[in-house]
Amino acid sequence: MNSFGQKLRFSTFGESHGKALGCILDGVPAGLKIDEEYIQSELDRRKPGKSEFETARKEADKVEILSGVFEGLSTGTPIAMVIYNTNQKSRDYTNIKDVFRPGHADFTYFHKYGIRDYRGGGRSSARETAARVAAGAIAKLMLKTLNITIESGISEVAGIKAKSFDYEYAKGSIIYALDSKTEDAQKDAILKAKNEHDSVGGVSRVVIKGSPVGLGQPLYYKLDAVLADAMMGINAVKAVEIGDGILSSNLLGSQNNDEIRADGFESNHAGGILGGISNGEDIVMNVYFKPTPSIFKEQHTVTTTNEEVDFSLKGRHDPCVAIRGTVVCESMAALVVADMLLLNMGSSMDGVVKYYI
Amino acid sequence: MNSFGQKLRFSTFGESHGKALGCILDGVPAGLKIDEEYIQSELDRRKPGKSEFETARKEADKVEILSGVFEGLSTGTPIAMVIYNTNQKSRDYTNIKDVFRPGHADFTYFHKYGIRDYRGGGRSSARETAARVAAGAIAKLMLKTLNITIESGISEVAGIKAKSFDYEYAKGSIIYALDSKTEDAQKDAILKAKNEHDSVGGVSRVVIKGSPVGLGQPLYYKLDAVLADAMMGINAVKAVEIGDGILSSNLLGSQNNDEIRADGFESNHAGGILGGISNGEDIVMNVYFKPTPSIFKEQHTVTTTNEEVDFSLKGRHDPCVAIRGTVVCESMAALVVADMLLLNMGSSMDGVVKYYI
Amino acid sequence: MNSFGQKLRFSTFGESHGKALGCILDGVPAGLKIDEEYIQSELDRRKPGKSEFETARKEADKVEILSGVFEGLSTGTPIAMVIYNTNQKSRDYTNIKDVFRPGHADFTYFHKYGIRDYRGGGRSSARETAARVAAGAIAKLMLKTLNITIESGISEVAGIKAKSFDYEYAKGSIIYALDSKTEDAQKDAILKAKNEHDSVGGVSRVVIKGSPVGLGQPLYYKLDAVLADAMMGINAVKAVEIGDGILSSNLLGSQNNDEIRADGFESNHAGGILGGISNGEDIVMNVYFKPTPSIFKEQHTVTTTNEEVDFSLKGRHDPCVAIRGTVVCESMAALVVADMLLLNMGSSMDGVVKYYI
Amino acid sequence: MNSFGQKLRFSTFGESHGKALGCILDGVPAGLKIDEEYIQSELDRRKPGKSEFETARKEADKVEILSGVFEGLSTGTPIAMVIYNTNQKSRDYTNIKDVFRPGHADFTYFHKYGIRDYRGGGRSSARETAARVAAGAIAKLMLKTLNITIESGISEVAGIKAKSFDYEYAKGSIIYALDSKTEDAQKDAILKAKNEHDSVGGVSRVVIKGSPVGLGQPLYYKLDAVLADAMMGINAVKAVEIGDGILSSNLLGSQNNDEIRADGFESNHAGGILGGISNGEDIVMNVYFKPTPSIFKEQHTVTTTNEEVDFSLKGRHDPCVAIRGTVVCESMAALVVADMLLLNMGSSMDGVVKYYI
Repeated sequence: MNSFGQKLRFSTFGESHGKALGCILDGVPAGLKIDEEYIQSELDRRKPGKSEFETARKEADKVEILSGVFEGLSTGTPIAMVIYNTNQKSRDYTNIKDVFRPGHADFTYFHKYGIRDYRGGGRSSARETAARVAAGAIAKLMLKTLNITIESGISEVAGIKAKSFDYEYAKGSIIYALDSKTEDAQKDAILKAKNEHDSVGGVSRVVIKGSPVGLGQPLYYKLDAVLADAMMGINAVKAVEIGDGILSSNLLGSQNNDEIRADGFESNHAGGILGGISNGEDIVMNVYFKPTPSIFKEQHTVTTTNEEVDFSLKGRHDPCVAIRGTVVCESMAALVVADMLLLNMGSSMDGVVKYYI
Repeated sequence: MNSFGQKLRFSTFGESHGKALGCILDGVPAGLKIDEEYIQSELDRRKPGKSEFETARKEADKVEILSGVFEGLSTGTPIAMVIYNTNQKSRDYTNIKDVFRPGHADFTYFHKYGIRDYRGGGRSSARETAARVAAGAIAKLMLKTLNITIESGISEVAGIKAKSFDYEYAKGSIIYALDSKTEDAQKDAILKAKNEHDSVGGVSRVVIKGSPVGLGQPLYYKLDAVLADAMMGINAVKAVEIGDGILSSNLLGSQNNDEIRADGFESNHAGGILGGISNGEDIVMNVYFKPTPSIFKEQHTVTTTNEEVDFSLKGRHDPCVAIRGTVVCESMAALVVADMLLLNMGSSMDGVVKYYI
Repeated sequence: MNSFGQKLRFSTFGESHGKALGCILDGVPAGLKIDEEYIQSELDRRKPGKSEFETARKEADKVEILSGVFEGLSTGTPIAMVIYNTNQKSRDYTNIKDVFRPGHADFTYFHKYGIRDYRGGGRSSARETAARVAAGAIAKLMLKTLNITIESGISEVAGIKAKSFDYEYAKGSIIYALDSKTEDAQKDAILKAKNEHDSVGGVSRVVIKGSPVGLGQPLYYKLDAVLADAMMGINAVKAVEIGDGILSSNLLGSQNNDEIRADGFESNHAGGILGGISNGEDIVMNVYFKPTPSIFKEQHTVTTTNEEVDFSLKGRHDPCVAIRGTVVCESMAALVVADMLLLNMGSSMDGVVKYYI
Repeated sequence: MNSFGQKLRFSTFGESHGKALGCILDGVPAGLKIDEEYIQSELDRRKPGKSEFETARKEADKVEILSGVFEGLSTGTPIAMVIYNTNQKSRDYTNIKDVFRPGHADFTYFHKYGIRDYRGGGRSSARETAARVAAGAIAKLMLKTLNITIESGISEVAGIKAKSFDYEYAKGSIIYALDSKTEDAQKDAILKAKNEHDSVGGVSRVVIKGSPVGLGQPLYYKLDAVLADAMMGINAVKAVEIGDGILSSNLLGSQNNDEIRADGFESNHAGGILGGISNGEDIVMNVYFKPTPSIFKEQHTVTTTNEEVDFSLKGRHDPCVAIRGTVVCESMAALVVADMLLLNMGSSMDGVVKYYI
């Protein structure tokens, strides 16, 4: 249950403060040029400690490929990647060892497994998402050969909404903001919360451009359903919306339907997906992140023996987990789309016959 | 790709206007009392033609069990159920045969498969969800033995929001409304749209009560992620929210964290799930439905040969697909929770040893 | 756990003496001509009651397609097929109700599930294989479009071994014998056992011709491993051999290696598979069936309450289950090969790029 | 497709001459004591270079656990293990770079993927099985807590058959021989072949003791079928037999049926499995290995451009791959049985209710 995908499938391992984390990416077609610098550059986008808007924990997140690549090309065999933890800080965990941090998975892991790795959240830490980004980078390389690109940015922080979406701009923004006009207010909200020992929520907007028509396997591996699964599984995500999803529940059919002309759809309320299958338009998602549960204010909680305590967390944490999270959203989206591309290849006998004869 | 679930797994078949639809439900533990009347009663809640708020197509949706039950009990073998279509109306489909209905899956199915069953949407029709309800009813029977219940209702229609959630009331409401005070306004909105040959969107709210702590398999079969997958895969659903998901993206951590006392959580912003695992609180979801794409107003579209036409749909359709959809949400939630219950059984060696020794 | 295959996946349901049995075949590419007469003809090859060498139970095994086919072509959606049981003979099962028949699954099902359908073995009956043959027939139709054929026959009965393998001859033989010279002796052995209220074992030999190089997914979905899984899962099969498998364990490497020349392999000890992947030669298997456990001689056994009884079975049974079993071997082989063909399509980026660009 | 198992699932990576190989083992219940010395001792049983009966390549096969274990106990999260390759010998591969070694997977990998890692067979090398042994060791630890043990040995080499099976003796034999009386003749056969630059085949016999009744999921994840899959997927295995499988195809039902008395079965021709489910008797398998294809005699072959060459292999190879292979058979059997134990836990409502209430 630590794997994702059908034909392109990755499995991750590792804990926040263990020796290493990493993944096996299985199903990459042979002959893909594996650009290790690109993979590292994707990890660099997600890595912590780059600015005051992120946790102060510094990790190089240097990825090493252990298998599956020969003379620069994928061989069709599993690509294993490992990232050693270098900055676990051998600090004293005594204060959180027996305490459930509010908003965290401590409580549920402890009750499910009867044991938990309390060092920084262990497996439930968002640090695991580094492995997703490594796998996602290879998926992006695969998509690039087909001219499919995935971009994202922060559309909202603490209720401050971007009014326009400039994905190019976001790439250069320290908080991956989509709108330069609202960026400063968003930054201020983050720093204000941080200074008050608090945190803020945010929204990531992801767009997939260049997708062919036909991706998505009905009825229980639909493109939108699998994207929802992929996004909701990211730490701190609590809602996922395709296209104008939430708004559309307020609209009339005549307002929401995307009419069609010979040169394509006249609008894209559907976010590029109809019946669970891509329709050739941009695939658009909004991913809603809750505020980081790790705050430094005193909170009510209990110990593992159910004693009540008033608890103040210490340590280093992101004041707004959506920021680095948006990179993870892109990675997961890339993995989903690449998987769907491979799965789609046997959809019709015409394609099968053409492939073999 | 027409199957869902891991340990409790169902596979569906059938088209809107084919001979029959149905499912195989695999993984039901042996010895469960299979109450056929209950299963039928669940199908009756979803079946069409019960009121002016639904499509006029009448289907008895009479379910027949073909296997897996012996002397009233499940045997541990697959339970196959079939529902014969009785009211396909051998009407003339000439007018839609070559036309892509806006907002429908016609366009994507045709391009993916090179062929489509144009009779009422074929496989992409929401009629398939009858099979989900049949499977879901058995999952509910299983959950009942563990005192877990699943309820739902309509919280919002065309932007008119319920102010309170009364699940008992919803059971008796013809539109499954959660709030008697807003129900009439919601009904009016539906009928107004219907009279104008249009449709409206809506929101279903689902609650799972009595779940034990520990359901959900990290990190890629999390309870919230699989619920998101399950809900997003339902026809017309465009967004899924766990707990206060969308609101929480606007909040501070200190506002959103659910603090803990010896007798439990002090709030439930998280919707009963932490780190992808149930925490023992009510599991709460909101499921956002777009307006039914089938409207009778003239719309722009193209034919399968990409000729532009102005098109008016005929036939019988739900003016608000969320209403019957909420029953499907419950069914899918039941199937997810039952699957998670079975998957959870090997979480710790203590449980394994206790089971075998 | 009642499903088989990855990309082409079938799920079966049904018991020996229930209402019906059948399957859902998922993943058939759209646009395949579905020849219903051919499917029925395959079922006719397996159906019981055709001669004195088979059980006297007569079943028409008439298959009905419920979904997934439109205007004679597959649509890419699940193909459901049902076969109603017509000759269950409402006879008295009192004598076997509480008794475990030696060599049967009665004992294990009862202890695993705490309940069993004792009518004719229930789910564990070889009657379920009719559903495999229905699914396999569609797989064969798919393979035919790629000029891949699957044939089989009986190579051995009660230790009497065919000296040559004539698959064309086997098609016309009432016991599917591969060698006309040993056929009579094999028939005699079967009838002798039958007359003595006993049964005999046998061996089926299956050959897959025309397979392209490259089928099989290393390392844990190898072609030979999945064929072994598929064959071993057929009722009464106790050993599976690829190529000269058993003999090769006695040989030297220099005797067993298949050397290669420009026009192909100089021998085929490997049975067409190297490293789990097809090499373009005929794929050859031997499948070893135990004697039918249903015999009419008195045997030692116990009841469900562990009381010892001396027990004589009554009813109608195949004296040599390998005969009808060979048709099932073909069907399962067809399903495996068709699955592997679809899975193979994303093996290299060259193929992916060619498919999409 | 580099993963195996359902509830207990492992995924392997790595090539013969790459940086490292290893695995992720997912689904280990929390709270299992992870004895690292035991894991290493299992790897030591399989590691090469221990005697003249094995390849001269020396590898320490030192395993390192990267995740999933905390304070000596499994945490329920994925256990990643890595083994760095230390003795790849940076020798010249020019002579085999463009040549297909007879009996090897070179030919099939090259044609499937359009590329191959020619250094020692790359991914198709039996070196990968070290990862299986590491995973299998943890499965064995899990089985031990339930008093289930798995043992094996060599029953046959080059046609020389053991007359009795002493699994304790086998543990101390340098060739894991089951019969001290035939061991010398078997050793002689191996050395004779080796001296003649040839290799020999052999047979491994595996026994699983202490299995409860009820393991195995009908009908497509049967215990025998999955064992067949697991064994056939091991390098050089060409046939798998359960119990007296091959012999039983020659027998009468009255000879082959295992009759039952109050204290158990009177014989075990079935090898402990009925209807795909364990019956509580010893589970017995024979696994047939072909002779190592790597021989030093001149053989006919072709290059990647289909030019004919007469080719003599160089390097270091096992003269009888069955010997180290038997350890791998045990490991795979352990993984299968442990998976089946976990899967079996939801078989009946009684068990589910007992677990939760």
